[in-house]
Amino acid sequence: MKIAIAQLNYVIGDFEGNLAKILKYIEKARKKKADIVLFGELAVCGYPPGDFLEFEDFIQNAQKSIEAIRSASEGIAVVVGSPTVNPDKEGKDLFNSAYFIEDGIIKHVQHKTLLPTYDIFDEYRYFEPAINHKCVHYKGLKIALTVCEDIWNIGNENPLYRVCPLDILSLEEPDFVLNISASPFSYSHAETRLEILKANVKKYGLPMFYSNNVGAQTEIVFDGGSIVMSPDGTIFREMPYFKEAIEIFDLEDVLNAIQSKQQKKNDILEIHDALVYGIKDYFGKLGFSKAIVGLSGGIDSAVTIALAARALGKENVRGLLMPSQFSSNHSISDAEQISQNLGIQYDIIPIESVYASFMKSLEKSFEGLAFNVTEENIQARIRGTLLMAYSNKFGNILLNTTNKSEMAVGYGTLYGDLAGGLSVLGDVYKTQVYELAEYINKSKEIIPINSITKPPSAELRPDQKDSDSLPDYDILDKILFQYIENTKGPKEIIKLGFEASLVKRILRMVNINEFKRHQTAPVLRVSTKAFGKGRRMPIVGKYLS
Amino acid sequence: MKIAIAQLNYVIGDFEGNLAKILKYIEKARKKKADIVLFGELAVCGYPPGDFLEFEDFIQNAQKSIEAIRSASEGIAVVVGSPTVNPDKEGKDLFNSAYFIEDGIIKHVQHKTLLPTYDIFDEYRYFEPAINHKCVHYKGLKIALTVCEDIWNIGNENPLYRVCPLDILSLEEPDFVLNISASPFSYSHAETRLEILKANVKKYGLPMFYSNNVGAQTEIVFDGGSIVMSPDGTIFREMPYFKEAIEIFDLEDVLNAIQSKQQKKNDILEIHDALVYGIKDYFGKLGFSKAIVGLSGGIDSAVTIALAARALGKENVRGLLMPSQFSSNHSISDAEQISQNLGIQYDIIPIESVYASFMKSLEKSFEGLAFNVTEENIQARIRGTLLMAYSNKFGNILLNTTNKSEMAVGYGTLYGDLAGGLSVLGDVYKTQVYELAEYINKSKEIIPINSITKPPSAELRPDQKDSDSLPDYDILDKILFQYIENTKGPKEIIKLGFEASLVKRILRMVNINEFKRHQTAPVLRVSTKAFGKGRRMPIVGKYLS
Repeated sequence: MKIAIAQLNYVIGDFEGNLAKILKYIEKARKKKADIVLFGELAVCGYPPGDFLEFEDFIQNAQKSIEAIRSASEGIAVVVGSPTVNPDKEGKDLFNSAYFIEDGIIKHVQHKTLLPTYDIFDEYRYFEPAINHKCVHYKGLKIALTVCEDIWNIGNENPLYRVCPLDILSLEEPDFVLNISASPFSYSHAETRLEILKANVKKYGLPMFYSNNVGAQTEIVFDGGSIVMSPDGTIFREMPYFKEAIEIFDLEDVLNAIQSKQQKKNDILEIHDALVYGIKDYFGKLGFSKAIVGLSGGIDSAVTIALAARALGKENVRGLLMPSQFSSNHSISDAEQISQNLGIQYDIIPIESVYASFMKSLEKSFEGLAFNVTEENIQARIRGTLLMAYSNKFGNILLNTTNKSEMAVGYGTLYGDLAGGLSVLGDVYKTQVYELAEYINKSKEIIPINSITKPPSAELRPDQKDSDSLPDYDILDKILFQYIENTKGPKEIIKLGFEASLVKRILRMVNINEFKRHQTAPVLRVSTKAFGKGRRMPIVGKYLS
Repeated sequence: MKIAIAQLNYVIGDFEGNLAKILKYIEKARKKKADIVLFGELAVCGYPPGDFLEFEDFIQNAQKSIEAIRSASEGIAVVVGSPTVNPDKEGKDLFNSAYFIEDGIIKHVQHKTLLPTYDIFDEYRYFEPAINHKCVHYKGLKIALTVCEDIWNIGNENPLYRVCPLDILSLEEPDFVLNISASPFSYSHAETRLEILKANVKKYGLPMFYSNNVGAQTEIVFDGGSIVMSPDGTIFREMPYFKEAIEIFDLEDVLNAIQSKQQKKNDILEIHDALVYGIKDYFGKLGFSKAIVGLSGGIDSAVTIALAARALGKENVRGLLMPSQFSSNHSISDAEQISQNLGIQYDIIPIESVYASFMKSLEKSFEGLAFNVTEENIQARIRGTLLMAYSNKFGNILLNTTNKSEMAVGYGTLYGDLAGGLSVLGDVYKTQVYELAEYINKSKEIIPINSITKPPSAELRPDQKDSDSLPDYDILDKILFQYIENTKGPKEIIKLGFEASLVKRILRMVNINEFKRHQTAPVLRVSTKAFGKGRRMPIVGKYLS
């Protein structure tokens, strides 16, 4: 039996486009003589569709797509994900389902049982878990059909669920397992997925064909990397990351584990590729091609614009330098250097005159009051306004350059340097930004060495340095990681050897700056815990603050 | 038996403060000779705690509070909500529980069974549903103890859940029902709550004591209005809205329905009170006292500042008028009028010079390009920057004045008039803003009549009117209501009699402007479907767009 996996990039709510793509790949699979072709989770409507699922109109559109796929399934079996209506009076109105469509007939609809409702996932908001499970009989074989999370309740120390769908399905003694997934990228996740699949195939002694979506959905990047695994745990094939692909596999070969092929894994390489892909798909799906980035001469804006140039092409990326009286000479020369290294267009607009005009207007109101964060923020907001003016006039989306360390402690100005349509580095700690810069420079200098080596500064007052108000990023990032990624409290973090007053001060900064993160751009997610929909914190509260 | 209900305002994560308040009210209940005192859902940590629940440290703090309450429960029974740890290996790590603590002993811990996971609610993100249910025996009576949603699965046409906790508890033939809730305000919700309670007491023939939290938690306003209901459905007592209170009830009196007392209900009055309370509590809990509002002379800013003055006192509210060359004379005189009517301080800072300075800086870049939305946005962003400068310099939180109609269709400038720490009218349609203005003016003119009667305009170009680019608000709001509150698709809305091309245009505007709403302030929620955490839409997608 030949099984094809089509890992595709779906657009949320684009029923026509998604259907056309699915039909095209059915045709490709047919040409490859596939018996089965596997698409992704909620393929017909895109994942995650959010509250569009609450619209009857949306669900009807999904059903129309399924009908069209059924009509096109002559001589082949198609496995495809769609929301379906729960016919029961009780429970949520929908299921998250995998269709098994064979030669014009809907042979089985297996609903998802384990509904991730944590981090970025909201599935129990919409879906009722499956109660019934049965295998599909096809060409003399029995197939266990599963959806994403359904294979994740295995061997965990602290399982989230009370049931395990494959325990039930395996009672029918299936020949192999199919899984359709929408499993998003984080820099450790490809490894985790392989481990989970290994635990499954070994537990049940069955080969598995696992199809993952690919493509960025605003902040969430699906990385593909679909997997075929032999019953002994051999990685028969791990399909490419960050691109659409279709591949075909012979069940016999997989059973016999005649090969072992997987993708190279490296955190910084993967983060780099995910960010480039995330930028590219954000623009592509919105129908925009051009970006603008404010260049300060610092490492964050340099890395951001380098990634943007790789994603969109240097001709589509524009830099804007906006020096003030507090800018150092190197802030301009370093910003010019990155622009020249990339071969991109850049403009210089000094902000002193607009700043002076603001200060003049506020003269009477602020009489006798000293320069403070107000005047710093005015500079940042003038820059934000200029960047947005370029964005509005020329149709370039503003990319935000704030890194995760800054975003965590609120080191940035709302409507100023926190502005932008998409945050490129908001899930990348400052120490990781340096690693990214090194990676980008691996064959030649793109990020100016001076941007890497000079001490970070916001340059909003004379001789300002990040280190005036923040600890070294080395220490800061470690504390932040324990708090954000590992959800450790102050006592646990102090126990790791960090200074008590510093830990408390940093945790407090994170918590009291939730109001800023509430109003910032979506952040491309590359870690297990990114700011945004995966981390839901009260703005008003008094915990560790 | 005497039962006291304490409807209190808890601060999220303020374990010390919440505990002190609970202990104080236990003392009050004891003085009133109460046998039982009822607090709210998750009272010890505040509701909704969000992802703080993922911190062990947070849960340990909650447990310490419970221990302190236990120690303080001499001679009285205390019913109080707290997260508790799920001792099972499988399932989510926590329960959302009601403690029944009697005279120093934890007599029963009843976990919540029905976990709302829709709109603003995320409970299945954190909690495992209860499996076990039993009544509490106390002073010779049997008590059915429930948490919030547990009583909501009754008589619904389309129930969300497959179980009904009171069906199970009623098998033990309890004498009465206790419920601790965190049920947020929307302008129709108090009525709905009474209906749900009525359905319960009638179905089971039992009286019910229902304690609701009060207080705003950022955008969500808990309105109190705790209820005591006799078995025949008589509203024995509906406690006040929007304030803390403790009241005591004799079970015999309730059984005999000797009285019937409820709060006055009126949509606009309730919205008015909820917004005033929401502003007040947002500032109070953040430790801020002063607000600033940009005054355009229009109705939205006038209503916003009037509500702010009621919430914070006129001495704590400041207006800023920022006329441009496109401002009409009445925009200044109307803005001065509202300031004078309220007796608040206001400044006037014309923006022409800063605008000219921006245009000068951009002259070369924009050479030969016509005035368009870019220049409109620059004006709005200059105003945003001036308002934020006041905010930073004087510690006044900027209140956003955008209404729900504008927010829906994206009629507003990011980082400009969409700036602010809290959106006051973001869940109030323009047509409702007019009703609010009338209500505010009911005994004397506060909102200037001219602000009410003149045609709405953003005044960002010569002779601009909202009606240039938007349909009449009468029609717009009706279409938006069908789409947003009623989740109707285009076909269903057109069927209601609206013009097809207009419906499609408006739905498209709503969808393509999700990116703006993603970056705006939290919106005080007064309807059943507010923008923000209760409405989760993809930014990048192609549905109805």
